[in-house]
Order: sequence, then C-alpha cells, then structure tokens
Amino acid sequence: MDKVNIENKFSQFDGHWQPKIVGELNGQYIKLARLKGEFVWHQHETEDEMFMVIKGQLLIKLRDRDVILNPGEFFIIPRGIEHIPVAEEEVQVMLFEPKSVINTGDVQNERTLDSAEFL
Amino acid sequence: MDKVNIENKFSQFDGHWQPKIVGELNGQYIKLARLKGEFVWHQHETEDEMFMVIKGQLLIKLRDRDVILNPGEFFIIPRGIEHIPVAEEEVQVMLFEPKSVINTGDVQNERTLDSAEFL
Repeated sequence: MDKVNIENKFSQFDGHWQPKIVGELNGQYIKLARLKGEFVWHQHETEDEMFMVIKGQLLIKLRDRDVILNPGEFFIIPRGIEHIPVAEEEVQVMLFEPKSVINTGDVQNERTLDSAEFL
Repeated sequence: MDKVNIENKFSQFDGHWQPKIVGELNGQYIKLARLKGEFVWHQHETEDEMFMVIKGQLLIKLRDRDVILNPGEFFIIPRGIEHIPVAEEEVQVMLFEPKSVINTGDVQNERTLDSAEFL
C-alpha cells in the first residue's frame, strides 16, 4: 500500500514484451511494459484491454484500421477484437486488464508468458 | 472505440469534484477529474480506488498517514480505508474504479453525485 512512481518502476526492468504488475485492484492488474518490434495478432475472448502510452509511440493495428498512440493517450481494445501492437522504437506503456488476461490471448507461442511478475 | 487524448478531454470541462467518464472496460470506469480544495472523509466498502495524478499535486490523507502524489504517480486506496483527497492548487487526476463507485462512498452530502457523466 505504497504509492507508485511510474518512471521509477520503469528504471527497474529492461526486457521487451514482459509486462510487470505494479498494482492490483478490483480483480484487475495495472501493468507496465516496454514494447519494441511487432507482437503477434491475437484477441482476448473475455477481457477488454487498455493500453496507455507513457513514453514513445505505439501503433495498434486492428483488422480494419490502425490506431496510433502518443504519450498521454490510451485506447481500449474490446474483447474479441483482433489486434497487434507494433513499436518501431521502444515504447513504454501502462496496461489495465483483468488478472485473468494471458498476454497472447487466444494464441499460444514462444511469446506466451505463464504469468506476469510483480515489480 | 476511439483513442482518448487525456489533455484534450481535460480541455472540455471545468468544474471541480465532478469526475467525467472517459473509458469503460471490464466493469470498470476510467474517469478524469479536476480537484481543488478539500473533499470529505469517506470510504468505499466494496471498491478499491486508484488515483493517478496527471497535472499538479494531490495530497491523500489517510487516518494514519499522508500520501503526496505528483504527475506520473498513482496510489490505490483499498476498500474500507478512510481517505480524503486534498488539493491546495487545482490538480488533474485519472481515476480507475468499478462502475458501482459513488464519489463520496459511505457519506451522503451535498457533494454526492447521483452518477458521473460520460465525456
């Protein structure tokens, strides 16, 4: 039950596509992640997912359009909507999502994490 | 299903202590609010509540200590914990909380809102 300084948390980890849990409330997690490159097309069948950009620029591709997020902008991807995050340069993002979310959604591959770590 | 630019949303309203809903996911709302002055001691019996500061400085008093939040910092107030937000100068905050939350929690007074507005 301490306050969280986002910049400070980002200084504590390096890897890409490995969200860290920095808060928990009402069955949801707040996560921070560094993204770089192209992820994988996937969807979450029962969870909506929020991406908020802290630093850098994130492209979220949907099947019918692209969404570009700069710092101070967020986007909610409704459940069941296929998406792929793409970061040409490294981007720092904050995620809000239910504790049950699996990072690659309905896809199982080498990027699938068993669980996210607490930071 | 559009992206949200936080600064742009803040430019669309003025009043204090009147959170606006700017996002909805998994039974939770994302709200933005301008706070100034002292609110009221209250608690939420069944909901945890997250305050993230976007601009300015927020003091959250708990019964046993004070928490000071600057931009880029957030704090989660667990359910059942009495708190009072205090903003000496105007502060812009983002809130993340279940849709069921009433702004003054267990207290009913002139600051109680029937519901928050969508923006």
